[in-house]
Amino acid sequence: MSLPNLDTLRDALPGLRLLSDANDLAHYGRDWTRRWTPAPFAIALPASVDEVVGIVRWAREARVALVPSGGRTGLSGGAVAANGELVVSLERMNRVIGFDPVDRLLHVQAGITLQAAQDAARDHGLQYPVDFAARGSCTIGGNINTNAGGIRVLRYGNTREWIAGLTVVTGAGEVLRLNNGLVKNSSGYDLRQLFIGSEGTLGIVVEAMLSLTEPPPPTQVMLLAMPDFDAVLAAFAALRAGLRLEAFEFFTARALAHVVAHGGQRPFAEDYAFYAVVEYAHEGEADETAALALFEQGMTEGWALDGVIAGSEAQAAQLWRLREGITESLASHTPYKNDVSLRISALPAFLHEAEALLAAEYPHFEVVWFGHIGDGNLHINVLKPADLAAADFVRDCERVTRLLADLLAKHGGSISAEHGIGLVKKPYLQGTRSAEEIALMRGIRQVLDPDGLMNPGKLID
Amino acid sequence: MSLPNLDTLRDALPGLRLLSDANDLAHYGRDWTRRWTPAPFAIALPASVDEVVGIVRWAREARVALVPSGGRTGLSGGAVAANGELVVSLERMNRVIGFDPVDRLLHVQAGITLQAAQDAARDHGLQYPVDFAARGSCTIGGNINTNAGGIRVLRYGNTREWIAGLTVVTGAGEVLRLNNGLVKNSSGYDLRQLFIGSEGTLGIVVEAMLSLTEPPPPTQVMLLAMPDFDAVLAAFAALRAGLRLEAFEFFTARALAHVVAHGGQRPFAEDYAFYAVVEYAHEGEADETAALALFEQGMTEGWALDGVIAGSEAQAAQLWRLREGITESLASHTPYKNDVSLRISALPAFLHEAEALLAAEYPHFEVVWFGHIGDGNLHINVLKPADLAAADFVRDCERVTRLLADLLAKHGGSISAEHGIGLVKKPYLQGTRSAEEIALMRGIRQVLDPDGLMNPGKLID
Repeated sequence: MSLPNLDTLRDALPGLRLLSDANDLAHYGRDWTRRWTPAPFAIALPASVDEVVGIVRWAREARVALVPSGGRTGLSGGAVAANGELVVSLERMNRVIGFDPVDRLLHVQAGITLQAAQDAARDHGLQYPVDFAARGSCTIGGNINTNAGGIRVLRYGNTREWIAGLTVVTGAGEVLRLNNGLVKNSSGYDLRQLFIGSEGTLGIVVEAMLSLTEPPPPTQVMLLAMPDFDAVLAAFAALRAGLRLEAFEFFTARALAHVVAHGGQRPFAEDYAFYAVVEYAHEGEADETAALALFEQGMTEGWALDGVIAGSEAQAAQLWRLREGITESLASHTPYKNDVSLRISALPAFLHEAEALLAAEYPHFEVVWFGHIGDGNLHINVLKPADLAAADFVRDCERVTRLLADLLAKHGGSISAEHGIGLVKKPYLQGTRSAEEIALMRGIRQVLDPDGLMNPGKLID
Repeated sequence: MSLPNLDTLRDALPGLRLLSDANDLAHYGRDWTRRWTPAPFAIALPASVDEVVGIVRWAREARVALVPSGGRTGLSGGAVAANGELVVSLERMNRVIGFDPVDRLLHVQAGITLQAAQDAARDHGLQYPVDFAARGSCTIGGNINTNAGGIRVLRYGNTREWIAGLTVVTGAGEVLRLNNGLVKNSSGYDLRQLFIGSEGTLGIVVEAMLSLTEPPPPTQVMLLAMPDFDAVLAAFAALRAGLRLEAFEFFTARALAHVVAHGGQRPFAEDYAFYAVVEYAHEGEADETAALALFEQGMTEGWALDGVIAGSEAQAAQLWRLREGITESLASHTPYKNDVSLRISALPAFLHEAEALLAAEYPHFEVVWFGHIGDGNLHINVLKPADLAAADFVRDCERVTRLLADLLAKHGGSISAEHGIGLVKKPYLQGTRSAEEIALMRGIRQVLDPDGLMNPGKLID
């Protein structure tokens, strides 16, 4: 590629906001991985679909690679720009375009934050139910590009379920308006589905029609303490059968210790090995009775060691903070993050083998487990010892991740449940997707992005 | 293409069951459209994934086109073999492979009927909730290839929502085992989604993992009589807000007359213009009170003219028969079927324009409306007058369908909600999908089916 000339872009799109000072390049060139040195060529901040089209057309002409950019809260390097790319930030395209109460559709620009979309839904008496801790910074466009999951998947599914329409600008600079909010549309390949989870490699998601649903029922939040992984699984099975669960999030003693060190409130006088924040529908006496009976059953059967039910909204928020504060409380330890998923039935065997593997391979590293057991999704965070160089730490983690990927392949799991592949997981994709699948992905990418300009190097080569 | 030699296929796959007598060619070469003269070259009935792979490899070598074939209950010509193709019938691959109670997954071969899959789910105390009248003959593979909808979409969504894993043999003869039943899997393009709704043009679906859910709640069935389309929409809005709807299916006086002529039980002494079969959760006194109050409200507001609530399961079945018997009762009239969908918010304007259009363009034809108003899905059946030649009738219907397609495009609708495009709707696809989308579909098809052997001529050219 020849050296790009920003003036030609300025000439083509006189109104386009462009940034190129060093601070901006650093800010927009990285995501939450912090592993790559940001080195974009410039930052474009389009304000309209037409400007995005203009950018892609210019990029084809100038042969400049593009990195679509949302809230850059990603954990897999999917939004990193470290090779002279033009970052296309959607942050100015953050409006609600429209709402229809009959269709229950919220039409948004892709740069809107998840939180703003949730708030807009709530203002209309409805709910956009995808939810996770980064809600205030992550964007709907980014959520779509990773098919984001989060803490309510158990009840509401992943982002994919809630995208009734999608507007994208392909790598060829064409605008596709996909599905238009229809409930039923059997008119050929559903290209919308292809873009969901495509990590910016096929085009730029510029707008979405979000399906909304009824607000959640009144809920209650319980914190459970448990002795081991088998108990976590038993607790989940019992509570799922007896309550209408909205969320079931587990974490280990180590995760709790970090959150408490960062200001979280210690929930019990004693320490336990495992905890779960459980949120369940609570519409009356009967729900409370059922929850208490299940807890008693857990104490009797041994899968519950202690428990507390929130007595107020403030206490519920405090209990949730123990789970939602984990990522932030680990950040200073530069964790290496695994984000694996398995069928729930495969979890018991996998967990035992994975625990043994990690104990053997990481004798000196602290390993923190948490995640969404009801979706088969485990987050395994390995913390960098303060005295170890970052490069050495990552090298060792990559060695072990390869072993973990083999274990996942053996148990039919995935190397990425919800973070995406990006740069971080690319070396391990073969354990999850077959060589034939990867070759087909490459072929499909070529169809949508004939010049290879869309987020090159991410997901697959 | 050179003339294929069946002996080479026999040699390659000695155990493969093959049929080639005239009756079989006629039987397996057509679907419910009955418009094309079946003329397949032969019928293959593989019993395993390996045999399907062998067939595709042979077809590539011999340059023979393949038509994947399920229950052939399709209404768009998607399973028609009229050009010397080899039909690949999945009817021998109709087994339940496995069930996992923890994952709530039913693993089936694609040739299993919808009914058999539903029954297997029920045997395990769970529900496979996709449902429609052809359940006894249509297959899961066919359902997947059209993303089948049916009568419970309102509550449970389309087939797409329930496919947790998919095994396909691509047009290149490669076996893809996609997603393996995982709830969360953000590891690149979700190829599974691409095959759902692909009408056999990318490969052959050979196995599926079906997600199961809780059995439905106890329900009650109500039949409503209404004066006009606006009343149908008002009734739907009121009942959706006040009841937990499992289904809301409307039909017109003409539809009822045909079903009654075929042995259906006339529900009311008087005739009304519109009817709806409504099924709703009925778990106690409160649900009954709510339903009756809504009916009273409808009588007061004018959107309900009469109504009956089933007093027994037998009566509920009788009411359902008024809706489910429509397709069969019209069959002798060789109906031309439209299967359109719109956003619900677009229905009022579309319905008035479409009614006027059809009244003006079909002054001498009987037009029967029914469908799934809550999904924005209308079935418009035009009946052939007995004295009109079939070819002339179809020609006239195609002329009007083009006008209808323009109207759909104006209102953002789709020419096919759930039947698929096949041969019947192919001329009108451009109204629903843009030229860019169709070109991309063509490119993707080329990637999955490089030799153009998979159901050629269907969906797109």
